[in-house]
Amino acid sequence: MHSWPVRVYYEDTDAGGVVFYANYLKFFERGRTEWLRELGYQSQSMLEQQDLVLVVRHVDVQYLAPARLDDELSIVTRVSTLGGSSLVFEQQAVRDQQCLVSASVTVVCVNTQTFKATRIPVSMRESIEHSNKDKA
Amino acid sequence: MHSWPVRVYYEDTDAGGVVFYANYLKFFERGRTEWLRELGYQSQSMLEQQDLVLVVRHVDVQYLAPARLDDELSIVTRVSTLGGSSLVFEQQAVRDQQCLVSASVTVVCVNTQTFKATRIPVSMRESIEHSNKDKA
Amino acid sequence: MHSWPVRVYYEDTDAGGVVFYANYLKFFERGRTEWLRELGYQSQSMLEQQDLVLVVRHVDVQYLAPARLDDELSIVTRVSTLGGSSLVFEQQAVRDQQCLVSASVTVVCVNTQTFKATRIPVSMRESIEHSNKDKA
Amino acid sequence: MHSWPVRVYYEDTDAGGVVFYANYLKFFERGRTEWLRELGYQSQSMLEQQDLVLVVRHVDVQYLAPARLDDELSIVTRVSTLGGSSLVFEQQAVRDQQCLVSASVTVVCVNTQTFKATRIPVSMRESIEHSNKDKA
Repeated sequence: MHSWPVRVYYEDTDAGGVVFYANYLKFFERGRTEWLRELGYQSQSMLEQQDLVLVVRHVDVQYLAPARLDDELSIVTRVSTLGGSSLVFEQQAVRDQQCLVSASVTVVCVNTQTFKATRIPVSMRESIEHSNKDKA
Repeated sequence: MHSWPVRVYYEDTDAGGVVFYANYLKFFERGRTEWLRELGYQSQSMLEQQDLVLVVRHVDVQYLAPARLDDELSIVTRVSTLGGSSLVFEQQAVRDQQCLVSASVTVVCVNTQTFKATRIPVSMRESIEHSNKDKA
Repeated sequence: MHSWPVRVYYEDTDAGGVVFYANYLKFFERGRTEWLRELGYQSQSMLEQQDLVLVVRHVDVQYLAPARLDDELSIVTRVSTLGGSSLVFEQQAVRDQQCLVSASVTVVCVNTQTFKATRIPVSMRESIEHSNKDKA
Repeated sequence: MHSWPVRVYYEDTDAGGVVFYANYLKFFERGRTEWLRELGYQSQSMLEQQDLVLVVRHVDVQYLAPARLDDELSIVTRVSTLGGSSLVFEQQAVRDQQCLVSASVTVVCVNTQTFKATRIPVSMRESIEHSNKDKA
């Protein structure tokens, strides 16, 4: 499983004194981006060189306990399903081994010229399969 | 059903040219807040006078089509379940009668002194039931 | 002077209980966008049809008093200087006739093909001059 | 001078393809927070144990060149003026030794009980002076 550290700053919190619920989706996107970067793929070059973008189609988020200012979280990311043009991620925001927020996130590989779903490129698919095998 | 207009500004978009996926949760929170305000309840005074806050426990979001810069959206909000201490909202971001994003959002009424779930105040419950009856 | 209402939601606040300082720049951008829309110009169509974007070059912001959750602010916008390719705006976030935050914002008209500053189109210049005369 | 790395994610960008101008204020706040943390001070414990918060009173920001998706920036932070109850920071967002955005940020030490400016605690003042001497 891929883990990425996220520090909670004032920008992430709200007047309730905790992290605003939408901002965990930012944290999870950082986790997926860094997971992808580790496999050798960057968002900007996928856009420019391959006309590809990973678009979120569905999220299911459970908020179990609040994170607070100055907390250091780990964003844990793994792929649970690898489809033809889609991926399902299971992600967690963890503090001191306690899961605060968990999410299931479905992304679809979209061609930015046609705006249609397209098959995940073979090389990326192989990297993901290889990565999943290593972690298992 | 309650409807609230939301205009898409640069702040809401990302480098993909569309509204960033986390930002619909901001729009939905505005919709719930305005729904509540219409019933006579404001977040700040609930916090200060009643030590109450509505905390999101679960969201399930379907992203069907993207919103873009300058779009004018309607955030449509209705209560589908009214529990003892919880509420389930069905919400949609709609543009020209097309649903772009739909969400099911569960919120829990929490006492800010004890950080525990607490019953929705009777007067608020009656307002919600009354409002639901009017719209049916 | 152009005035645009902004309601403060949880998304705008931070754990200090007030509006996070960066978010006033979002409010001011909404004010300038609505001022421009009133003159007949929309960001998305300027991008697509004219390859033009108004880019912020400089901001100077004075934070005088904090805004809080549920506050209703007025974002007041006027043009103080109209240059060949640049505009200077004076903007304020006002609550109950008290100025909470004031800003001077310099924007430059940029061609998105060349990424260079370009003259403000004549028709837009005339609209701005006409608008300024009306308000004087 | 203190330096803190910031990666640009989708959340930071806008439909213009670059980092949204307000978001540099988030990056600069992260830089000041990490500078302070290195001196041994954390925002949450300052709030809870000392009723103190550092409030931004004034910012002056020059936007020189845009940052883009996937960019790795360094947020460079130094104190230029140490007053009785205020601090002036000079901050820069740097990419490959090019300064993209520079800011002068004035913060005031505020007591959260009285909401009034208060003297910077002696121990913090000594840490800042000591730190500045080390870096000179």
